[in-house]
Amino acid sequence: MSEIPSPSAASTDVVAAALELFEQQGFEATSVEQIASAAGVSRSTFFRQFGGKEDVVFADHEVLLNDVRAYLARGHADPWRAVCEASERVFRHFAADPDVARRRYSVVRRVPALREREIVTVFRYERLFDQYLREAIPGLDPLEAVGFAALVTAVHNHVLRRLLRGERVRIGVLRAALDDARRRYGVLPDDAGNADDVVVAVFPRRMPAAEVTRRLRERLT
Amino acid sequence: MSEIPSPSAASTDVVAAALELFEQQGFEATSVEQIASAAGVSRSTFFRQFGGKEDVVFADHEVLLNDVRAYLARGHADPWRAVCEASERVFRHFAADPDVARRRYSVVRRVPALREREIVTVFRYERLFDQYLREAIPGLDPLEAVGFAALVTAVHNHVLRRLLRGERVRIGVLRAALDDARRRYGVLPDDAGNADDVVVAVFPRRMPAAEVTRRLRERLT
Repeated sequence: MSEIPSPSAASTDVVAAALELFEQQGFEATSVEQIASAAGVSRSTFFRQFGGKEDVVFADHEVLLNDVRAYLARGHADPWRAVCEASERVFRHFAADPDVARRRYSVVRRVPALREREIVTVFRYERLFDQYLREAIPGLDPLEAVGFAALVTAVHNHVLRRLLRGERVRIGVLRAALDDARRRYGVLPDDAGNADDVVVAVFPRRMPAAEVTRRLRERLT
Repeated sequence: MSEIPSPSAASTDVVAAALELFEQQGFEATSVEQIASAAGVSRSTFFRQFGGKEDVVFADHEVLLNDVRAYLARGHADPWRAVCEASERVFRHFAADPDVARRRYSVVRRVPALREREIVTVFRYERLFDQYLREAIPGLDPLEAVGFAALVTAVHNHVLRRLLRGERVRIGVLRAALDDARRRYGVLPDDAGNADDVVVAVFPRRMPAAEVTRRLRERLT
């Protein structure tokens, strides 16, 4: 968790102040002036940190998307697992401060324009996962990348939404769901026994051919 | 294909005229007046048929979403298959008139606001599939419904996008990808032999428990 860069303390204060005002008096009825004054910053500071009122609500996602991009770019032995770990990083970020996350959720739910922007934002994670998988596994059928990215994103959002609605959801719930996703793609390493002298490679039939190739190459070099 | 209700011939003409203008002179630069005059309808007729310029672009999706909703509501012996068939219906609709579909795609790609609205529209199919599965299979773990709906939608869009980019894509490509999706969820009926006297029910371990129950109940009543 400590690895995830946070927005500066100043902008975190602005986000908190804005969300509180949005929740109390409504998103539409809240002006930038009110937010700036509640957060103790100038109007121009606000506009330097955020493009507008909407951007305050989605500031965390910008930070997280950059974090996920950087995390994936580090290089990972198992790209499928890396995507799942990226999803867990995002979940942990919101779970670390559920009150702010819930306040944001309740604001977003009430404003159609914010709901739509959230759908678009969620899709940016999905596309990021998709692109990463295609790059990390040359020759991977795009259908496999697209499908796995969508599955992980959907599962992640469902578990996160439960948290945001007030449920106490442990990270283990998400992890189990992501393991399931990998199992469906035949890319969850199982902890079956291994022999010392003979290596027999067994791959589930539903594992993408490009992934089989990648794993064999990894073993043989 | 003939089962899918089409927008009235009049509104189809307006859509075609609008897409042609959008492609020639840009979405922003095209006025409602120009569309109405090119399509030979009055401004008030235009506004009666569509809420605004953007709605012309997404008019087909409104028709298709209603068609999918009605199709799923008919009741189906195999809900997983019904979702895949709904996806095929949507694909067939666009494949039947690829020129108009490609023109729309090229307009949407160039206008960020339209791209975002498309993402939101795609999500409406996903949510429809998700809700249908939960209703059709009582007790189904929402994670299974959410994941399968996302997988089908993502796979569908990938194949459709290939068509819209000018590739000749047959419906069989989509069907194979949707079969894969069902296989990953253990819900693709296989055509293995069947005995006459003894019924042995074998279910893949990864099949959702609620789906096993549903199938057993169906057999035993």
